[in-house]
Amino acid sequence: MPTQDQKLTQQMYKSLRLYSGSCNRPLAQKIADILGVELSGLALEKFANGEIYARFDESVRGADVFLVQSIAGPSVNDMLMELLVATDAAKRASARTITAVITHYAYARQDRKAAPREPITARLVANLLERAGVDRIITLDLHQGQIQGFFDIPVNQLSALPLFGEYYNNMGFDTNNLVVVSPDVGRAKAAKMLSDMLGCDLAIAHKGRPRHNAAEVMGIIGDIEGKTCIINDDMIDTAGTLCASVRELKKMGAGDIYVCASHGIFSGPAIERLNDAPIVECVVTDSIPVEVGGKIKTITVANEFADAISAVYGERSVSKLIGGDFAL
Amino acid sequence: MPTQDQKLTQQMYKSLRLYSGSCNRPLAQKIADILGVELSGLALEKFANGEIYARFDESVRGADVFLVQSIAGPSVNDMLMELLVATDAAKRASARTITAVITHYAYARQDRKAAPREPITARLVANLLERAGVDRIITLDLHQGQIQGFFDIPVNQLSALPLFGEYYNNMGFDTNNLVVVSPDVGRAKAAKMLSDMLGCDLAIAHKGRPRHNAAEVMGIIGDIEGKTCIINDDMIDTAGTLCASVRELKKMGAGDIYVCASHGIFSGPAIERLNDAPIVECVVTDSIPVEVGGKIKTITVANEFADAISAVYGERSVSKLIGGDFAL
Amino acid sequence: MPTQDQKLTQQMYKSLRLYSGSCNRPLAQKIADILGVELSGLALEKFANGEIYARFDESVRGADVFLVQSIAGPSVNDMLMELLVATDAAKRASARTITAVITHYAYARQDRKAAPREPITARLVANLLERAGVDRIITLDLHQGQIQGFFDIPVNQLSALPLFGEYYNNMGFDTNNLVVVSPDVGRAKAAKMLSDMLGCDLAIAHKGRPRHNAAEVMGIIGDIEGKTCIINDDMIDTAGTLCASVRELKKMGAGDIYVCASHGIFSGPAIERLNDAPIVECVVTDSIPVEVGGKIKTITVANEFADAISAVYGERSVSKLIGGDFAL
Amino acid sequence: MPTQDQKLTQQMYKSLRLYSGSCNRPLAQKIADILGVELSGLALEKFANGEIYARFDESVRGADVFLVQSIAGPSVNDMLMELLVATDAAKRASARTITAVITHYAYARQDRKAAPREPITARLVANLLERAGVDRIITLDLHQGQIQGFFDIPVNQLSALPLFGEYYNNMGFDTNNLVVVSPDVGRAKAAKMLSDMLGCDLAIAHKGRPRHNAAEVMGIIGDIEGKTCIINDDMIDTAGTLCASVRELKKMGAGDIYVCASHGIFSGPAIERLNDAPIVECVVTDSIPVEVGGKIKTITVANEFADAISAVYGERSVSKLIGGDFAL
Amino acid sequence: MPTQDQKLTQQMYKSLRLYSGSCNRPLAQKIADILGVELSGLALEKFANGEIYARFDESVRGADVFLVQSIAGPSVNDMLMELLVATDAAKRASARTITAVITHYAYARQDRKAAPREPITARLVANLLERAGVDRIITLDLHQGQIQGFFDIPVNQLSALPLFGEYYNNMGFDTNNLVVVSPDVGRAKAAKMLSDMLGCDLAIAHKGRPRHNAAEVMGIIGDIEGKTCIINDDMIDTAGTLCASVRELKKMGAGDIYVCASHGIFSGPAIERLNDAPIVECVVTDSIPVEVGGKIKTITVANEFADAISAVYGERSVSKLIGGDFAL
Amino acid sequence: MPTQDQKLTQQMYKSLRLYSGSCNRPLAQKIADILGVELSGLALEKFANGEIYARFDESVRGADVFLVQSIAGPSVNDMLMELLVATDAAKRASARTITAVITHYAYARQDRKAAPREPITARLVANLLERAGVDRIITLDLHQGQIQGFFDIPVNQLSALPLFGEYYNNMGFDTNNLVVVSPDVGRAKAAKMLSDMLGCDLAIAHKGRPRHNAAEVMGIIGDIEGKTCIINDDMIDTAGTLCASVRELKKMGAGDIYVCASHGIFSGPAIERLNDAPIVECVVTDSIPVEVGGKIKTITVANEFADAISAVYGERSVSKLIGGDFAL
Repeated sequence: MPTQDQKLTQQMYKSLRLYSGSCNRPLAQKIADILGVELSGLALEKFANGEIYARFDESVRGADVFLVQSIAGPSVNDMLMELLVATDAAKRASARTITAVITHYAYARQDRKAAPREPITARLVANLLERAGVDRIITLDLHQGQIQGFFDIPVNQLSALPLFGEYYNNMGFDTNNLVVVSPDVGRAKAAKMLSDMLGCDLAIAHKGRPRHNAAEVMGIIGDIEGKTCIINDDMIDTAGTLCASVRELKKMGAGDIYVCASHGIFSGPAIERLNDAPIVECVVTDSIPVEVGGKIKTITVANEFADAISAVYGERSVSKLIGGDFAL
Repeated sequence: MPTQDQKLTQQMYKSLRLYSGSCNRPLAQKIADILGVELSGLALEKFANGEIYARFDESVRGADVFLVQSIAGPSVNDMLMELLVATDAAKRASARTITAVITHYAYARQDRKAAPREPITARLVANLLERAGVDRIITLDLHQGQIQGFFDIPVNQLSALPLFGEYYNNMGFDTNNLVVVSPDVGRAKAAKMLSDMLGCDLAIAHKGRPRHNAAEVMGIIGDIEGKTCIINDDMIDTAGTLCASVRELKKMGAGDIYVCASHGIFSGPAIERLNDAPIVECVVTDSIPVEVGGKIKTITVANEFADAISAVYGERSVSKLIGGDFAL
Repeated sequence: MPTQDQKLTQQMYKSLRLYSGSCNRPLAQKIADILGVELSGLALEKFANGEIYARFDESVRGADVFLVQSIAGPSVNDMLMELLVATDAAKRASARTITAVITHYAYARQDRKAAPREPITARLVANLLERAGVDRIITLDLHQGQIQGFFDIPVNQLSALPLFGEYYNNMGFDTNNLVVVSPDVGRAKAAKMLSDMLGCDLAIAHKGRPRHNAAEVMGIIGDIEGKTCIINDDMIDTAGTLCASVRELKKMGAGDIYVCASHGIFSGPAIERLNDAPIVECVVTDSIPVEVGGKIKTITVANEFADAISAVYGERSVSKLIGGDFAL
Repeated sequence: MPTQDQKLTQQMYKSLRLYSGSCNRPLAQKIADILGVELSGLALEKFANGEIYARFDESVRGADVFLVQSIAGPSVNDMLMELLVATDAAKRASARTITAVITHYAYARQDRKAAPREPITARLVANLLERAGVDRIITLDLHQGQIQGFFDIPVNQLSALPLFGEYYNNMGFDTNNLVVVSPDVGRAKAAKMLSDMLGCDLAIAHKGRPRHNAAEVMGIIGDIEGKTCIINDDMIDTAGTLCASVRELKKMGAGDIYVCASHGIFSGPAIERLNDAPIVECVVTDSIPVEVGGKIKTITVANEFADAISAVYGERSVSKLIGGDFAL
Repeated sequence: MPTQDQKLTQQMYKSLRLYSGSCNRPLAQKIADILGVELSGLALEKFANGEIYARFDESVRGADVFLVQSIAGPSVNDMLMELLVATDAAKRASARTITAVITHYAYARQDRKAAPREPITARLVANLLERAGVDRIITLDLHQGQIQGFFDIPVNQLSALPLFGEYYNNMGFDTNNLVVVSPDVGRAKAAKMLSDMLGCDLAIAHKGRPRHNAAEVMGIIGDIEGKTCIINDDMIDTAGTLCASVRELKKMGAGDIYVCASHGIFSGPAIERLNDAPIVECVVTDSIPVEVGGKIKTITVANEFADAISAVYGERSVSKLIGGDFAL
Repeated sequence: MPTQDQKLTQQMYKSLRLYSGSCNRPLAQKIADILGVELSGLALEKFANGEIYARFDESVRGADVFLVQSIAGPSVNDMLMELLVATDAAKRASARTITAVITHYAYARQDRKAAPREPITARLVANLLERAGVDRIITLDLHQGQIQGFFDIPVNQLSALPLFGEYYNNMGFDTNNLVVVSPDVGRAKAAKMLSDMLGCDLAIAHKGRPRHNAAEVMGIIGDIEGKTCIINDDMIDTAGTLCASVRELKKMGAGDIYVCASHGIFSGPAIERLNDAPIVECVVTDSIPVEVGGKIKTITVANEFADAISAVYGERSVSKLIGGDFAL
């Protein structure tokens, strides 16, 4: 028998249906628990020939459907297809609105033509989602803020930067001896934001040839010698470049090195490399399922997503959550 | 130095560019050889995190791009994504037209809502292809002819039925003792066409309860006793139902059993099952890469695809190739 | 003065407006009566030059408009145009949603390219309806279930098969001596469903050449000799082929023959042919207006449509009505 | 064996295919003759149940298809559907471009909301044509020039006004005693154009109440007493209002009255009314098939359409044909 | 502290948000006052380089946004861009509906191709508004009623004609000595409507050559000698032609001349010209901000817009407001 | 009489039509001269009320239309509207393709939601251009490369960076004493590219609070003391921040300071500020018309645009022009 509180919640979220794709069910469950709702039934199958199939257990007619999915993991395209297929099913079953809660948006790095005859796959994926019938996107730390503009539908982008700011502030570092290091010039802006939150210095690593015809080496602008370094990136994929940079920093005299990133993709040898690298720890969010252990820690973004879903459903502002200050 | 013939071919197919996805490069190569053109360079990569990337080696500006892909294999969604991503790249690189030559169209069985709250994924995939920028489809034996109507763009559907007709006619069976067996009532029409080509009888297998409350059993309508049977299907996936039916037919007194299908998906234990089943042989086309051996044989559809591409490019009719007689 | 019940109904269906096209007003009225609502005023005129004109009598701003129309009758294109024109008027008058309740969907047989350079008119009609502004379709027994996939909007397909099943079950036939006959291989699946409902045997008629160069004759697979036969089809148009088949069945020794079909189009000499044919009776639904008499009987689908409208409006599931079991 | 001239024409119009709908084949044939091309084969059928079917006899792949159709006649909706269905077939058969040559555009008078909850059917028809796949429109004297703006695709609007100007100039009227009469205030602009061509005066008939509470009567502004009157309208439908106006003009002292209109719809009793009315003659174009005789005369617009088709195909300007001077 | 009345209003218009563009804030404020709501905060900036920027002060998630803007003034394109940019912002901020309340719709005179290779800019603007995300239009006296058909979304067109009718009826003219004069044949219909409201005569001015080769002069059809004339137009731009016509009318013996128009654009020397012309007064609405004084008077359309907004928001009919009688 | 060369050019560019908007006619003329074609006639007017009007002098039927326009000041919205209106006219006049050659793309800085309830105007403008009918974009140094992904149509982005690289290399600086300075962290990537071209060091300016609660000051990472500095930005608008930064750099001990930017917007006091600032010179391209003099110099991008147009028209690769190395 539902308690009084549960009844109130049921009333408040009457037409809200929360579903989870198969990539990141633990995070979806956490979000459901915070909201006080059940994860509704969505049968997702992968047939013998690899085709994805989706079917909603109960009627979604007139419902506000929220599909939590991380487009990540061993097979990003299967996870993307799950989202598209479930959206098609929800649309044909007369859902009132369909919100894709994409905790990690794959293909974000293919966001411009860096070379001729390349795709802009981040835009293609946006087109596919809109074509399938998605009405709104809630997501976390897109590789570039401009990706919001790849959509015609509303996009609410949350950020893990404030969580990292809070995390490191709680560690009580001597801010005179602390520096946030951007791993390349393209990420300088986010590193600047984090350094502002921590009230510490900023440094920027970059690759280049010091002189014509010289070999390419890593350079660093800003002072890191003897300082505690926090490297911030939006995602860690194979961790190859990152760990090489960490070693360079150490050679240059860096003190303790901490690494944080919104999305822990951790492809191939990433975890091993990180554990072997001269870092103190590596913190990522649970936007992608991660096995914690060794130097790998996580902080959850479940509260942020739950708040955003609640605000979107209840037609309240989510601006307090996303704040212009953290927009890249 | 190109020969006189090669020069003529180059002239004739001046703006034609033929590319292969990674699923079925052998068939694409055969098509290229028949046309007398090179397979052009298309770099296809799968990044460490599973993202697909595509890049054309040379300019496709103003070119008529033909992308040969089988949406099949261990990962159908990767193969679909390859096609979408390459299409996006070709579109942004100003190709004049983009034709998707889809030798096997996955998701074709999800072509209607057989149960509430299901997707119609075959339509979704059509939408995705059109949204990405595909201008025209050439394909083979769609699960249902109605799938053509899922597209707004022209679809040329080829059929392997005439090849099977020719194949079995060449085997010199006694047609008085030959029967084509449809594996279920839904495939009766194709079986009827094949039996007309061979000038032999037709039988239809079906599952059902002979009386209320009875267990479901296979029934057969039409006479198979002592006869050579040819079972025709559009695709063989796990071969489970097929091999069970074969055994039932044998129990009912069938003679030699031959199996043919346009698409050899052969998921999981399919090959093993077929080799173990009381059949003489199983013939499929090379629309999907198949390892030949044991009871598995293939006949190529390269000529059909090459003719269709040539006709489409040269703006000639392809109706001789597809013929109303084989439209399902 | 409205009764208490009427007041409740008015409250329940506050924003629901039910309108009838000019093709099948009797069915629309029955639906209205079952729902307990009035048929709202929609002026439909055909001008002297044949143009259709539509105007809603009262404001539809913010209303959920249900337009009941059968695309059938002496002039299917006028009926289609009525639906399109009324939809345009409702859209421009700010209706909240527009549901086309298409009791008979014409052009359904033009659902694929059976020959080169043919249209796929069933898809064209879907496109026209969506372009005019229809938000949702409720319909009955489409010629092929795949036609649902011709739409991007939700389609709820009802079926008359359960009604026929109930009808014949109530007649108390000896099911050991009863057989459902599919009039051709393409309809075998529906016949199979009906035979399952009745717990009786299945037979399939087919046209073909028994041997090379022989004349085309009707064949039958399955046992009909001396048995009561029920022929089921989705629609009866001119009844020419059907009545010829009936005579063939009789020659082959069939017992009493009953005919049923979801849609009684009855073009040209159809009624005369049916009355002259050796059948006991022919039952169709009232999806198209039919003059009952002679061997022609009807069963109403008004309850099915009323339930579906009520469920759609009330945002409840309609899956109990349509059931996966009857999806073709 | 084709003559040298025919060979040149064949070369010049290599990819041009001219087809006729079933409404106005005589005009289509005249256009073909002027261009020196054959009317190509397009099978158009109306099935027993009223459905339209279309099939092109020969390949249209890569062709520039021109579909000549008058959306008029006993059943305008059938004629519209013919055009839509043939367009769908041409599009799916990979025609390069599809030009609808609409000699009469029905529904043109439903071009705005004159009352609440009305459709704007002229826009709806434009939407349907574009959705079906039409790439360009060639038409004659739209009821209002603004209808061009209902299309996103290019529209070439021809005008019969210069033909009428030439026709009446050739009759040698005394222009001092000649007046062009607009049948209502809405057509004043076209009447003004014609009066400018003829170098004569202008008068405008209008309906209204001379004073509050008075009955509605026809008024005339401008001098018609004793003068030869030419009434010009864009179309004559039932001719009821027109013939009443003619009688009023006579009562007001008008001299001989001539009537001309671009489109002779002639619904119901129109022809009888015109023959009975006190007019000298009524001239219309052959944009709609008209039986000539009594007071009804026609002038052909075949040359204008042939020139426009030739210019469109040959990518030359058609502005000489349409000219800003005749744009309403 | 809000009064009881204010609380009721707040409740009634709970999700209504009324915003003003920068062109006509006084009218927007009047509308807000009549409705009893606040003008909500919308920051509109023009950056140093001329770019427009818009930002909503408070959340619009789930709100029904009404954007009041006059596309007029010194820079019509800036005003159009304000509307488009604010619409984009509202759409991305998840507004439920966006209604553009366009008190003056610029570009309305570019509503057809009057000459070859011209744009139809009135349609282009409609396309841009729809593409940006506008869901519905409320506007006043479009240059032609057909412009409604340039939109696929609902358009509610209000008219100032009844206000002018009331205004002049209150002036107590002798209707036997009163005539409404249309400034050209294209506006004859509106003049006819006004003359019907006033119960007086109608006259139509027109430009033309009385005979071949003669110079173009103004003609007048209808009797104006000694009569009080009311010239009605939809808009007054530079007033050049209008003032020239006024002088011609005076030469022809007209009595007092009054001028009224729905939209007072008053470009360049318009005000000076009007004050210098032999007219008694010129009345326009406040659809565009106008400096009153000299002969220029205004009547407000705030009530009409407030009523329309209230009806649209409350999902009541606006037909009483717009009435078929005033549709051009 | 055309020379032999001119004849060849005419032949080569047979269907190419080059038009200029009114913003940057000098650059369009230079491009025409390099290509050896005439600027074709496009009448552009601004009516008294501010509306834009466009008309092509000669037929564009079947032509490849290139519209050169700089969407830049004094009134960016007028310039944008010119482009949209001309595109609409070209589309309705049956141009084969329409390429917008946008030498400066305004609104590029509004490329993401930096604060809640903001528009993404750079995407809106892309939508407007596509909706009007633009088929392809050629442009220069977009504020962010991701803006390419705001379009579904092909975008060719040229870069002025190689021109600046060449320019400064020719000045013979001592590269050991030279540093490229990014004016903020967001532009670090472009500055890195330029420093690589010059073979010199990199420094990055940034605004921030050195410690919590401290005032915001400019910081610099990298060594600039005594060095010649080149500040590179994509555009210079009011030059306020830039000139403040220059003064800070000087205080920090910078040597000679050079400034370069792709787009010289120079709003308000920009020119005055630059001439007063302690810089040696400021170099921009002619993407926007600039009055040269004082410290302002220009280098032309006419060759780059002419090459791109020629390549696009001739269907050759433009990748040599844009190169992956300069993609931001």
